[in-house]
Amino acid sequence: MRQRMIGVIGAGQAGCAACETARQVGRLIAASGAVLICGGLGGIMEAACRGAREAGGHTLGILPGADAEQANPWVSLAIPTNLGHARNMIIAHAAEALIAVAGEFGTLSEMAIGLKLGKPVIALGSWPGLPDVVYVDTPEEAVAAVMAELK
Amino acid sequence: MRQRMIGVIGAGQAGCAACETARQVGRLIAASGAVLICGGLGGIMEAACRGAREAGGHTLGILPGADAEQANPWVSLAIPTNLGHARNMIIAHAAEALIAVAGEFGTLSEMAIGLKLGKPVIALGSWPGLPDVVYVDTPEEAVAAVMAELK
Amino acid sequence: MRQRMIGVIGAGQAGCAACETARQVGRLIAASGAVLICGGLGGIMEAACRGAREAGGHTLGILPGADAEQANPWVSLAIPTNLGHARNMIIAHAAEALIAVAGEFGTLSEMAIGLKLGKPVIALGSWPGLPDVVYVDTPEEAVAAVMAELK
Amino acid sequence: MRQRMIGVIGAGQAGCAACETARQVGRLIAASGAVLICGGLGGIMEAACRGAREAGGHTLGILPGADAEQANPWVSLAIPTNLGHARNMIIAHAAEALIAVAGEFGTLSEMAIGLKLGKPVIALGSWPGLPDVVYVDTPEEAVAAVMAELK
Repeated sequence: MRQRMIGVIGAGQAGCAACETARQVGRLIAASGAVLICGGLGGIMEAACRGAREAGGHTLGILPGADAEQANPWVSLAIPTNLGHARNMIIAHAAEALIAVAGEFGTLSEMAIGLKLGKPVIALGSWPGLPDVVYVDTPEEAVAAVMAELK
Repeated sequence: MRQRMIGVIGAGQAGCAACETARQVGRLIAASGAVLICGGLGGIMEAACRGAREAGGHTLGILPGADAEQANPWVSLAIPTNLGHARNMIIAHAAEALIAVAGEFGTLSEMAIGLKLGKPVIALGSWPGLPDVVYVDTPEEAVAAVMAELK
Repeated sequence: MRQRMIGVIGAGQAGCAACETARQVGRLIAASGAVLICGGLGGIMEAACRGAREAGGHTLGILPGADAEQANPWVSLAIPTNLGHARNMIIAHAAEALIAVAGEFGTLSEMAIGLKLGKPVIALGSWPGLPDVVYVDTPEEAVAAVMAELK
Repeated sequence: MRQRMIGVIGAGQAGCAACETARQVGRLIAASGAVLICGGLGGIMEAACRGAREAGGHTLGILPGADAEQANPWVSLAIPTNLGHARNMIIAHAAEALIAVAGEFGTLSEMAIGLKLGKPVIALGSWPGLPDVVYVDTPEEAVAAVMAELK
C-alpha cells in the first residue's frame, strides 16, 4: 500500500519558536501515519523531520544538491536531486498537502505552486493574505486542517 | 557578445487590457535591445512576444511540454523542456530581471523565485504587497525600472 | 539513520525472463536492508518493486508524471516529479549504485549518467561493451557486486 | 517564424582535432540557417559555438549552473538552468537533431535520450555501435545527414 505524504515547507534558517512549531507539526504528521516530505535541509525542515522521527515516523528529504550528506540528520530517506530550487516543484507534486511554517521567498514560491496544483496549503505564521490558503494558529490545527481537506 | 535577456511573466489566459499592456512591455524590451524570455504559451506570454517581434526583437519561449508546436506564433526560439512548472525556474535563472503582468499562482511562484535569486522583479497590475518588488503603473515605467536596476 | 538506496533501472515493458530476474534483484536488495529506488512504472521497475516488497522491503518510485496513481502497485513511496525523462537524473543521483536489467535507450541514458557520476553500475543482460560497467549473469552476482563496490 | 535548432553534443574538454571538427560542424549548421544549441561550456561545445558565430549564426547555451558567466564566449544566448546534468534533457528535447562529436559518458547519455525521443542522432568519432545512430566521417556528411533526416 502506498503511504500518504504530507509536505512541510519553511526556511533553512529559523528562530526557536518557529522550529518548535515545526517540530510539533512533524510529530503530528508522523502520529497520523503519514510520511513527512520536505527539502531536507536545516531550520524548519530539520525541526519538522526531528519531530517526525521522534514520533516514530519516516522522513523524505528532497535535496537541492547532488550529495546525500547535505541532508539534516533526521532525514530517513535522502534524495539528492542536483536540481537546485526546481526540487521545490517535486515536493509540491509529491505531497498531498503542504504545511508552511514561517518562511521566506522560497516558501512563498512553494506555496504558490501548491495552490496552482490545487493542493491544500496550510499556513502557520507564514505569508499572509494569500487566496485559498488555510490560515491556522497551532500545529494541532494545521494537521487537523490537512486531514479535513484530504478526507 | 552575449545578449541581455528580460523575462515577462503572466498567466496563459488574460483579458484585453492586460494583454495590451504586455504587448507594449514586449515592444519596449525589444526596443531596448534585449531578448524577451518567457514561458512561450498564450495570454500574457503571447502578447509580450507579439510586441517584441513587432518591434523587431527576438523572443525565447521556455515551454513546459515536449513539443515546440506548443509555442505561441510570436516565439522565435522555442525551447521545449518537458519539465512542466519547473521550467519557471529556468526563466527566473536566465532573465536578468522579471516583469510580471497581471498573473495568478504560477506568476506568484515565479516572482518569489526571482526575488529569492536576487533578481529585480517589477509588477504591473500583478500580486500586491510583496517585499522587494518594484510596483509600477505603465509599461514605460516597468522597462525604465528594469533598466535602472540593471545599470 | 539514513537508509541505503540501490537503484534498479530497465524498460517499462519487458519479457517474463527479464521480469523474473528483476524480481529476484528486488528481493535481494530488500534482504540486504537497502531501499529500492526506481522509476516507479511497469515492466522491470514493477517486477523489482514486487520482489522488494515480497521480501519486506521499501520501494521508492520516482515518477515522470504529475500523478502518484501512475506508480505500479508495489511502490511504497511514490514521488511524482512531472519532470519527464529528467527524473532519471534524480535516480542516478539518489542511488548509491545502479543495477540495469535488460533495458532500452532510457536505460542506456541512465547507465551513462550513473557512470558519469562515478556510481557503480552493474548490468544484467543489459547494454554490452560499456567501459566501467560490471557485467554479471545472475541477480545474486549483481547484488553481491553492489555490496562489494560499496564496501 | 520559429527558427530550426540543431544540437551539438560532446565533452567539455577535447583535443585539437575533435575541436576543429566541432568548429566546422558549427560553421555548417550556421550556414544552413539553423540555430546551434548546446551545453554552452568549453571543449566541443565552445568549438562548435565558435564556428557557428564565425559563420554569422546564433548559438544557444543551455548551462548546468546558475550563472550566465559560465557560458563560453561564443554563446549568443546563455540560459543558466541550475539543473546540473538534467539540462542535457532540455537540449535533447529542443534540438531537432543531435550531432555528437567525440564525447564521454555525458555525451552517451545525451545520445541515448535523443534516440529515445526519436530524434536523428549523428555521430562523428563518438560512441560506436549504437542502434539507430547515423555514423559519419566528416562535418560535411554530418550536417548533410541532419538535413536529409529532417526533410
